[in-house]
Amino acid sequence: MKERILTGDRITGKLHLGHYVGSLKNRVELQDQYETYLLLADVQALTTHFDKPDLIQQNLRQVALDYLSAGIDPDRATIFVQSLIPEIAELTVYFSMFVTVNSLRHNPTIKAEAKERKFDDMYYGFLGYPVSQTADITFCKATLVPVGEDQLPHIEQSRKIVRRFNQLYHTNVLLEPKPLVGEIPRLIGLDGNQKMSKSLDNAIHLDSTPDEVSEKIKRAKTDPSRIHATDIGHPDICPIYAYHQAFRKEESDEIYESCKKGQIGCKECKRRIINGINDMLDPMRDRRITYENNPKRLDEILMSGTQKTRLLAKETMQEVREAMSMNYF
Amino acid sequence: MKERILTGDRITGKLHLGHYVGSLKNRVELQDQYETYLLLADVQALTTHFDKPDLIQQNLRQVALDYLSAGIDPDRATIFVQSLIPEIAELTVYFSMFVTVNSLRHNPTIKAEAKERKFDDMYYGFLGYPVSQTADITFCKATLVPVGEDQLPHIEQSRKIVRRFNQLYHTNVLLEPKPLVGEIPRLIGLDGNQKMSKSLDNAIHLDSTPDEVSEKIKRAKTDPSRIHATDIGHPDICPIYAYHQAFRKEESDEIYESCKKGQIGCKECKRRIINGINDMLDPMRDRRITYENNPKRLDEILMSGTQKTRLLAKETMQEVREAMSMNYF
Ligand code: SF4
Ligand code: SF4
Repeated sequence: MKERILTGDRITGKLHLGHYVGSLKNRVELQDQYETYLLLADVQALTTHFDKPDLIQQNLRQVALDYLSAGIDPDRATIFVQSLIPEIAELTVYFSMFVTVNSLRHNPTIKAEAKERKFDDMYYGFLGYPVSQTADITFCKATLVPVGEDQLPHIEQSRKIVRRFNQLYHTNVLLEPKPLVGEIPRLIGLDGNQKMSKSLDNAIHLDSTPDEVSEKIKRAKTDPSRIHATDIGHPDICPIYAYHQAFRKEESDEIYESCKKGQIGCKECKRRIINGINDMLDPMRDRRITYENNPKRLDEILMSGTQKTRLLAKETMQEVREAMSMNYF
Repeated sequence: MKERILTGDRITGKLHLGHYVGSLKNRVELQDQYETYLLLADVQALTTHFDKPDLIQQNLRQVALDYLSAGIDPDRATIFVQSLIPEIAELTVYFSMFVTVNSLRHNPTIKAEAKERKFDDMYYGFLGYPVSQTADITFCKATLVPVGEDQLPHIEQSRKIVRRFNQLYHTNVLLEPKPLVGEIPRLIGLDGNQKMSKSLDNAIHLDSTPDEVSEKIKRAKTDPSRIHATDIGHPDICPIYAYHQAFRKEESDEIYESCKKGQIGCKECKRRIINGINDMLDPMRDRRITYENNPKRLDEILMSGTQKTRLLAKETMQEVREAMSMNYF
């Protein structure tokens, strides 16, 4: 029996190389080892994008295409749409009865995000993020959640909520999730910003054409102290070197040395990584085109994944209702 | 087309004369005039009773029996179980995205109740009460909510949430509820406390036998300055006089005068109200027995009411999803 993992994305935009390096690549590997549930989190996207519903609708299929093109196999991994599983909302409501406002306010992740987004007044749903995340994990009885270090407080809070639920209702119907902590590499942005991010407009999306990749890399920042190809370079501060490390590991030591010694020009260095990224994206493009040409197949994958997940959700909810003495009829 | 009202009770205990005088009697009258939806609020009962699930289960049918015995007509009013309408949880989650924590904290009703219950740390679900109440009202497109003055801030907040939703999603699918403000008479407790309340153990339940009514009234407080039947009394501070006013209006002036003048003994005064209350409860007892002897019929009423309501909920949710661009397939 394979352990079950839950992972997914808030549907606030299509995915880029930063997502690929940070999580998607890892998920493609995990699907062999674990029973994988992939959440298209359209409801949680609302926590920050409630005023942009069209954006969520537009990106739902885009993100699904990103998953499939990156190598998520719909025969092994189950992709589902959050808003079509009302049991998640039900569990969120049930958990919210015994989770205190302070425990949410003090959740370091919430605190940090609230600060980052400059919420001087927080939205109620945003504050409850750890509660709804616990519902996501528990409704499908996932026991593992791939996370980065910064997400550990969320998982810890989920574990507490599960323990409290099971203790309150003298049950073991809900499973305590464990974090599957991996290194979550951050990919530097095209502008040299520490994080590749759609909102900073410094990202290469997974659906980029070869020309788009080429254009973006050509305009990317490099070590500003390099004027001539023979100038001594500082690859550590250069996004292009970071991309070599991420996508052309085998050549990256050579690039490092050549740049340091002024033996390679930025143009040549960029040319190589353009090829490198395009080589990596090519099989993704092939898969994407297959699905783009067959939108019915894509919808079938999403609908059948959601349907399968819904059955699981109904089972869990039935058990939850029994545990809570709410099975009246 | 009759206007639709939503009303109901948190299922935290069976109902007593205080409920009857304060709301149930009024609801029985309203069902002629309005299309009435009666919410058995088991989920909201959890906000204060999440650790007593058995109590909620036990009382669900009791409260339904209280409704029916008091004269709620299942052919006109629709009685339904909150937890069996997952769309309420879904709407609660959607609304929570754009309602700020501060607007909830400053809701006077929440503030007052939090103080009363001595929550030094509030539960997340309790804080969200106005949000879930808005979901209750809007999912079934009720436009009227019978409330007392103290509940007005809740309705005002509901109206705001509805306006915000409709404005955000350029729709008019949700209807702004109006309060149907009535006098909500408070019934004094058997111990003289200003409020008859189960938790104060000073209540006469609607399912009381004649003997139980008699016993309870006999032990009830009266004006303590009256030792002899001829002592001058102060009916204004006497629960028994309050009951005469509530249940034997036609004789209450006479009681008032007689008590004031020391022309009636408390024993006789109590005997009369025992009869008065029992006369009022007798037809309720008859109706209750009918249903108690036919538990299948009771379950049918609850199940068909819930089913009918669920259809309404699904329709509304479909419209909500369309308005929010979440109708993906
Ligand atoms: S040679 Fe390559 S690594 Fe060095 S600065 Fe230029 S682009 Fe960056
Ligand atoms: S006579 Fe009646 S109203 Fe007056 S004190 Fe006695 S019980 Fe109360």
